[in-house]
Amino acid sequence: PPTRLAAPAKGRPRLTLLGCVGALYWIAESDDGLVLVDQHAASERLLYDALLREGKLARQELVEPITIHLTTTQRTALLAHAEAVHSAGFTVEPFGGDAHRLRSLPSWRGGRARAEGLNALLDELAAGARPSVPDGAMERTAASIACHAAIRAGDPVSPGEMSRILGALYERAEAVYSCPHGRPVLLQIPRSRLDRWFLRSGP
Amino acid sequence: PPTRLAAPAKGRPRLTLLGCVGALYWIAESDDGLVLVDQHAASERLLYDALLREGKLARQELVEPITIHLTTTQRTALLAHAEAVHSAGFTVEPFGGDAHRLRSLPSWRGGRARAEGLNALLDELAAGARPSVPDGAMERTAASIACHAAIRAGDPVSPGEMSRILGALYERAEAVYSCPHGRPVLLQIPRSRLDRWFLRSGP
Repeated sequence: PPTRLAAPAKGRPRLTLLGCVGALYWIAESDDGLVLVDQHAASERLLYDALLREGKLARQELVEPITIHLTTTQRTALLAHAEAVHSAGFTVEPFGGDAHRLRSLPSWRGGRARAEGLNALLDELAAGARPSVPDGAMERTAASIACHAAIRAGDPVSPGEMSRILGALYERAEAVYSCPHGRPVLLQIPRSRLDRWFLRSGP
Repeated sequence: PPTRLAAPAKGRPRLTLLGCVGALYWIAESDDGLVLVDQHAASERLLYDALLREGKLARQELVEPITIHLTTTQRTALLAHAEAVHSAGFTVEPFGGDAHRLRSLPSWRGGRARAEGLNALLDELAAGARPSVPDGAMERTAASIACHAAIRAGDPVSPGEMSRILGALYERAEAVYSCPHGRPVLLQIPRSRLDRWFLRSGP
């Protein structure tokens, strides 16, 4: 497998974004080969860090509220975790029966979370948040929130947004190279490995 | 290592060129992940096939002849392999002493070989052409010619030329997936492998 970055290179390396594969993985040329970025893991990691740092995520008020339906379990989780859900950027109002109106969604420059992210977040909070990593109730809740607020596979991301996220990643500590659940955010394939794959011995 | 294509997929797959890494490897998105192409191996393979098929390569006449200098060994090889050298697209005239004038170079749409390719080709012909693959004197000579006429690492290639070469590759038999010396032309990294690298279990 490609090299996982344990720590960022000194300073921000020169990266040239080439594009996106499978509406999920960004491809960039670095000074030393190829860099692959998982857009969900990258967004998740930045939102998780922002949550732990600021206690809340940015929100986008909706001109037209979105109606969603919650199960009994989700409604119970909403009551139990009202503050966390609000900090995540979701403003939710009961709208009769199982219907609820969403008046705001977690947002980041150039995009916003999907409304259905709330259902998944409530399911996870009801189940006691992510069982595995990280330690601590607050961290686990933050990880759940970040996951369900983040850009997902299949979400279109503009080149400007890719650049902004890559820049933000490289500005952060080494922890930024994995998402809160331990998955890699960024992998690099050094030129020497590409050469080996193509059976190139010399330059 | 990534998957080496033993045979082309049925028909020509949808490929979206993303760009080039290290002035050598082209990166494309396919229906199922990532495709990497070695520009030298790809060009070499197509020129080799053209040589075996047509007996000669296209040539570009030079408005200004290029003067190069040949060693004694290279001059001997030029006399011994005059026909092969001419078929390769090099038109060479003695110009006094070790100086020779190049009046044409091997060409392909949008580019032409480097003049120094002739020196390397003559060295190789003098040494009895490539010792390893392929079988047969004609094939070995064709492989040498193709190698030294082909696009090299570091040569700039336009997106239009990349597309044309990729199209030509996919139109050819399965042999097209290695260069005449057995190196891979095209490698693919399926989506399932990218997912594994990023520790993604689900979609």
